[in-house]
Amino acid sequence: MIPRYSRPEMVAIWEPATKFRIWYEIEAHACDAQAKLGVIPQESADAVWKAKDVEFDVARIDEIEAVTKHDVIAFLTHLAEHIGSTEARFVHQGMTSSDVLDTTFNVQLVRATDILLAGVDRVLAALKTRAYEHKDTVRIGRSHGIHAEPTTMGLTFARFYAEMDRNKNRLEKAKWEIATGAISGAVGTFANIDPEVEEHVCEQLGLRPEPISTQVIPRDRHAMFFATLGVIASSIENIATEIRHMQRTEVLEAEEFFSAGQKGSSAMPHKRNPVLTENLTGLARLVRMSVIPAMENVALWHERDISHSSVERTIGPDTTITLDFALNRLAGVIEKLVIYPETMLANMNKFKGLVMSQRVLLALTQVGVSREDSYKMVQRNAMKVWEKGADFKTELLADPEVTAALSPAQIEEKFDLGYHTKHVDTIFARVFGKD
Amino acid sequence: MIPRYSRPEMVAIWEPATKFRIWYEIEAHACDAQAKLGVIPQESADAVWKAKDVEFDVARIDEIEAVTKHDVIAFLTHLAEHIGSTEARFVHQGMTSSDVLDTTFNVQLVRATDILLAGVDRVLAALKTRAYEHKDTVRIGRSHGIHAEPTTMGLTFARFYAEMDRNKNRLEKAKWEIATGAISGAVGTFANIDPEVEEHVCEQLGLRPEPISTQVIPRDRHAMFFATLGVIASSIENIATEIRHMQRTEVLEAEEFFSAGQKGSSAMPHKRNPVLTENLTGLARLVRMSVIPAMENVALWHERDISHSSVERTIGPDTTITLDFALNRLAGVIEKLVIYPETMLANMNKFKGLVMSQRVLLALTQVGVSREDSYKMVQRNAMKVWEKGADFKTELLADPEVTAALSPAQIEEKFDLGYHTKHVDTIFARVFGKD
Amino acid sequence: MIPRYSRPEMVAIWEPATKFRIWYEIEAHACDAQAKLGVIPQESADAVWKAKDVEFDVARIDEIEAVTKHDVIAFLTHLAEHIGSTEARFVHQGMTSSDVLDTTFNVQLVRATDILLAGVDRVLAALKTRAYEHKDTVRIGRSHGIHAEPTTMGLTFARFYAEMDRNKNRLEKAKWEIATGAISGAVGTFANIDPEVEEHVCEQLGLRPEPISTQVIPRDRHAMFFATLGVIASSIENIATEIRHMQRTEVLEAEEFFSAGQKGSSAMPHKRNPVLTENLTGLARLVRMSVIPAMENVALWHERDISHSSVERTIGPDTTITLDFALNRLAGVIEKLVIYPETMLANMNKFKGLVMSQRVLLALTQVGVSREDSYKMVQRNAMKVWEKGADFKTELLADPEVTAALSPAQIEEKFDLGYHTKHVDTIFARVFGKD
Amino acid sequence: MIPRYSRPEMVAIWEPATKFRIWYEIEAHACDAQAKLGVIPQESADAVWKAKDVEFDVARIDEIEAVTKHDVIAFLTHLAEHIGSTEARFVHQGMTSSDVLDTTFNVQLVRATDILLAGVDRVLAALKTRAYEHKDTVRIGRSHGIHAEPTTMGLTFARFYAEMDRNKNRLEKAKWEIATGAISGAVGTFANIDPEVEEHVCEQLGLRPEPISTQVIPRDRHAMFFATLGVIASSIENIATEIRHMQRTEVLEAEEFFSAGQKGSSAMPHKRNPVLTENLTGLARLVRMSVIPAMENVALWHERDISHSSVERTIGPDTTITLDFALNRLAGVIEKLVIYPETMLANMNKFKGLVMSQRVLLALTQVGVSREDSYKMVQRNAMKVWEKGADFKTELLADPEVTAALSPAQIEEKFDLGYHTKHVDTIFARVFGKD
Repeated sequence: MIPRYSRPEMVAIWEPATKFRIWYEIEAHACDAQAKLGVIPQESADAVWKAKDVEFDVARIDEIEAVTKHDVIAFLTHLAEHIGSTEARFVHQGMTSSDVLDTTFNVQLVRATDILLAGVDRVLAALKTRAYEHKDTVRIGRSHGIHAEPTTMGLTFARFYAEMDRNKNRLEKAKWEIATGAISGAVGTFANIDPEVEEHVCEQLGLRPEPISTQVIPRDRHAMFFATLGVIASSIENIATEIRHMQRTEVLEAEEFFSAGQKGSSAMPHKRNPVLTENLTGLARLVRMSVIPAMENVALWHERDISHSSVERTIGPDTTITLDFALNRLAGVIEKLVIYPETMLANMNKFKGLVMSQRVLLALTQVGVSREDSYKMVQRNAMKVWEKGADFKTELLADPEVTAALSPAQIEEKFDLGYHTKHVDTIFARVFGKD
Repeated sequence: MIPRYSRPEMVAIWEPATKFRIWYEIEAHACDAQAKLGVIPQESADAVWKAKDVEFDVARIDEIEAVTKHDVIAFLTHLAEHIGSTEARFVHQGMTSSDVLDTTFNVQLVRATDILLAGVDRVLAALKTRAYEHKDTVRIGRSHGIHAEPTTMGLTFARFYAEMDRNKNRLEKAKWEIATGAISGAVGTFANIDPEVEEHVCEQLGLRPEPISTQVIPRDRHAMFFATLGVIASSIENIATEIRHMQRTEVLEAEEFFSAGQKGSSAMPHKRNPVLTENLTGLARLVRMSVIPAMENVALWHERDISHSSVERTIGPDTTITLDFALNRLAGVIEKLVIYPETMLANMNKFKGLVMSQRVLLALTQVGVSREDSYKMVQRNAMKVWEKGADFKTELLADPEVTAALSPAQIEEKFDLGYHTKHVDTIFARVFGKD
Repeated sequence: MIPRYSRPEMVAIWEPATKFRIWYEIEAHACDAQAKLGVIPQESADAVWKAKDVEFDVARIDEIEAVTKHDVIAFLTHLAEHIGSTEARFVHQGMTSSDVLDTTFNVQLVRATDILLAGVDRVLAALKTRAYEHKDTVRIGRSHGIHAEPTTMGLTFARFYAEMDRNKNRLEKAKWEIATGAISGAVGTFANIDPEVEEHVCEQLGLRPEPISTQVIPRDRHAMFFATLGVIASSIENIATEIRHMQRTEVLEAEEFFSAGQKGSSAMPHKRNPVLTENLTGLARLVRMSVIPAMENVALWHERDISHSSVERTIGPDTTITLDFALNRLAGVIEKLVIYPETMLANMNKFKGLVMSQRVLLALTQVGVSREDSYKMVQRNAMKVWEKGADFKTELLADPEVTAALSPAQIEEKFDLGYHTKHVDTIFARVFGKD
Repeated sequence: MIPRYSRPEMVAIWEPATKFRIWYEIEAHACDAQAKLGVIPQESADAVWKAKDVEFDVARIDEIEAVTKHDVIAFLTHLAEHIGSTEARFVHQGMTSSDVLDTTFNVQLVRATDILLAGVDRVLAALKTRAYEHKDTVRIGRSHGIHAEPTTMGLTFARFYAEMDRNKNRLEKAKWEIATGAISGAVGTFANIDPEVEEHVCEQLGLRPEPISTQVIPRDRHAMFFATLGVIASSIENIATEIRHMQRTEVLEAEEFFSAGQKGSSAMPHKRNPVLTENLTGLARLVRMSVIPAMENVALWHERDISHSSVERTIGPDTTITLDFALNRLAGVIEKLVIYPETMLANMNKFKGLVMSQRVLLALTQVGVSREDSYKMVQRNAMKVWEKGADFKTELLADPEVTAALSPAQIEEKFDLGYHTKHVDTIFARVFGKD
């Protein structure tokens, strides 16, 4: 994680203070359950809640850990400083450090996902707004980077919307994947603690009890989680790549917003760089790089080894922070993207009607001209456009063989952009619903 | 794909004959829809079905393609050889090659997934059988490869079951992801073909129409699909790693089945290698390696470029074939795994009761001995076990300070395995339901 | 590996017949060394060479393997059919299957690398030719896809040459990495065979003896090898991306060669797709996907496990075949790339001299105008170009404040392309040497 | 980067103060060269060195950057505060920000590599010491985790030494790869600055001039660099995996050092977890995850885009810091590894001589017993060992058919460990030289 690619809201989830707060809640809820089961005195359980509004002193806990060499024990010692060591003696009873650590990690991931979902929603809202705004803004569709047939800018936004909407669905599923907790002991047998404690703690924290854990929550869940973030990052790269292409000097159909104050903008008006979307391209690589390590984390030895830990200490914060930043940067780019419909038209007409050559070819064959002859007729006029910069429609209208087969009106009709946009509403209804 | 790691059923899905058959069905269904729309004559649509039972001649199509340099045109030419060129003339009308190719790829992936699901089911059935069989077979649970507390072999199988059951759920979701088709034309605008054709073809093929496509079906779907396969592969590695550990000479709690006839087995009875699970470990790496390329495929340029194609020609077959083989190999390994409960007990007792030291420590503190004193009492007896091979319980029973605090019965109780297995039924009910 | 992305020369290296031939040579050379050491009779060693010109019958060996379930034994049995079982009895003595298999794999990789090196050389030759051809062909240099300052097409080729030349150097190093052999026995102790056998066999096969092996040659070598191929693939993607950008409709500074006969070319002259370089982009992903599995292969358990085997059976052939194909396809693309210098000039002039605005700004400050005033003077003229399509130089020459600071000649000079190309020869000398 | 997995020496390289110091040196050396060329006054160049001993104020530079929105300009402004704005006016003349940034990144990578090389040397020294210490400590060699033939612990260390020595060589090559600098301007043409400036600056900083750059130093160099780190990480995983296996309860041939003070060690003497090597396994995944993004960074658009930047801001520090920490942790583990030669012997004898069965088999055939009979003779005695825990040698000596073929001395000889260790010196000489 580096500050320039992070938002405070997400960073906060991964701060020590947040972690200790979750540890506290787990311990306190566990005490409630233990008291209800009669394992520990009710007063002791109640006493733990005395620390409810305490902001734990991270420096102090670190200080204790320097002595105890154990983070959970350090925290419990500090907790005892708040609630008294007599009452504190029942805290954590029957539990294993991993019970606290793994459940906490999942709470953090769940909360991180809620923020990511808000980011996706912001992207979706921006895409929808821009899609409707440019529903009928005609631009050339391109395959292989080469002009193919007309489409609209709205359709471009709409397809990104549909893709990001799938990502929202995937992210909700990914959240469900990691929304479990475990309080099951050293090897997951509940030997030292009743399963009801796990059930109570999970319920209070908005988690489901992990049906079967070992010492740890199984890591296939986290592999699926990070894989999902990798897919979302790839969609961000997809949208970013489109914008980068649109902004390149020769295309210039859109530009990232460039504030009036940004230095250099007007002395070199041609030099507005799509640095935000280039940055998003790089951030996508960073998010994706967590996918394979998260998968390598699945095969822990027997009931657990700790090889996954260093990986997760890194990718837990880094990947969610980076993706969160990327989603919000992307939303901002889309919201403020400057779009140039006239350039879109100008680009489409660069080859003076040639993009319609296939429709003309088809029309000729449909009125009965042989495929070979149709081809020759289109070809000779196309070459005039290509080589001499003539206008395709004008040439066709002046070609007696063509006009013998097709009336001027029929030829005109082949150049009608409405032909290409007639189903835009249908597609929009598919994507956005028929409101 | 290499033959030794493949099963014919899955290989068949990726054979040219299968592909051509799907192409044919797409074209034939499209003709039906076009006829209903009045775009082509009903007789022509009907005529296409004349080829219903034809097995297309792959060599002949290749021959034609060598001339036309276009695979779809080659196929259509060959189709015309069966249904007559007059009727064939309306086939593919208004369609783009990608309409056929992308929809076919998804049909293949859906069918491949059905086979993968059957493989997962076979693994699940094997795990469940072995879990119940060894529900109460006690073995030592290990964290960090070090003995921790007792658990049961049934719990090990049960947790793999739960993990694989999650994978089944993920795979069903992944199938849903790629179960779409598109017949939407050169840039996805339906300029040359009515959306109803897409709807009809998809319905007939068991797909959903892609709400918005460009020339291609969006590749975030496939990224999610291959990412899911990568997670499943990681679970396979997880199970394989457990078995490899169990079979190593010093552990020997289980062995892959070794048929009587297998050479060398009885002259070197100690040398039975877990080659199948080692192989599964490697296959997992192969499946996972498709994940990143599938994600890199998402960001196509504008309405499509063809960079994804070579990737998918490779990972489409290779990854599904490898995973299918791995799932079935894994199922076989589990079904026939030879388990040695006596060795499990012997291993657990390697350190003569030391694994119970923590319970004894806890018991001492609970009857009021200070933590420091409890620690010393456990320690001095533990060291006798560790250094001289004494029996832990015997030593404790002979230590007057210990027996002053705990009665012989209380000490005995700490060595009761039932303490550790008391919640096995609860956990089984969570995993397998309360049938 | 799929046929359409493979060349027969490389495929041949991975065919069973080649493998058996190498096995044979290893066994025969080992017999020579064993005879010299007096371990086996000289006549028996000599007898093995009777099979020198035999083409081994792959089907027959498979047939035997179906019975023996062991590939090396099957081969030895077949060999005995050629040289007689009496003499054959000494073949393979003291050796382990892995001695043969691992050494063979490295021989194959070395040979594959020689072919790859030839491919790199072909790419280098093409790049050098095109670099000199277009040494002075001016085109606009772009950062962020936006026009920056002029450069030349020759420099573009030259930098790809320098990059590919580094790759050649890396590939030679990678070849050196895997050019080792091992004949060291079950756990690498030479218990059953003298190290001199290894030395002799390696010398005959052009390998170095592996200084210390276990049962296998250490896999860090192969990890480095495949990582190097991944870097080369990334360079291919780099060049392919440049060409794809150059060919896009709005840029059109170059095109992949399009043969006269290619259908559709002249009826839709604008629709020539850079499919070869798009394909190269995908192939690069395929080559790269072997890198991580090859690294995961390094950590084998103890003296060896066989998890690496399935990975290598796949990536050994697939990655070298794909990269070989890609290199040769790339060479072909470069050799025949159609370049449009006029379009390069036209593109550069799209914003009528604006790319020179920075030089003018600098010149103004250098003659003593304050930075703020210089900026305003450039800005007001730049905006006329940007908004009204005026010519930048003309505007500057007509601006009295500008001409008060800079003479017309000085202004003219700022638009001299020679300013930007004056060091091209220097750079060429750095890249290609001063021949 | 997270503090617990980092060492201050490496962290320092990536701190802002270090970066600014390198920026300063580049600018100062560039001024020297410019003065020598007569481009700027000598006094101005000299004046820059007035700041030679200044510690730049990072907070102040950040403050300025908050206004200028440009990091290099902020630094130059701050520099002017030290050397005076009159003299400062010539600093950076003709240069582009990337000239400074890219050259600085490579200086940092070079320095980081020097620290990594020291780490590798420390690992090598530890491995060599332990190798000689345990040159003759016999332990069982294992393939597939199953006992195979005897080897020595010294050979295990020696092979890790050889592997790490290869990594040292690779790392030196990787350092060479990225030891270049570029001062070549906006698109690499040296339009605004003479190549001699680049040459002088590079010489002063211990770099080679990049033969041809664009705006940036080509990223294939960095891809190769990070790929090399990935290979080294995989070797670390390899060694860590060996130690984890040795420490598992049932094997216990070695343990990570456990300080007397470490809590819990003596009350649960069996529970010493190999947490350091497990951690190293995870760190290896983290280092490897930079490899693919670094390769994806190679294909920048045209003369540069900035997608690589966010990736490098992350993996530059994180990967070198993590690998540095891992190398030093590994060295510490090896230096202090507690080795149990008696357990090694005990483990080897677990199956009472069975590991020698293959030698006996071979001996029988060599004295003329048919392969079938030899097999039966070995088999029946082996089964007694396997099933009844008999001693293999004793059984053989009591088998009249065996003793008819082999004398007791011959049988004895087959159980001589010296047979397996006779080439240890030869191998050591290969690995460590014949000093």
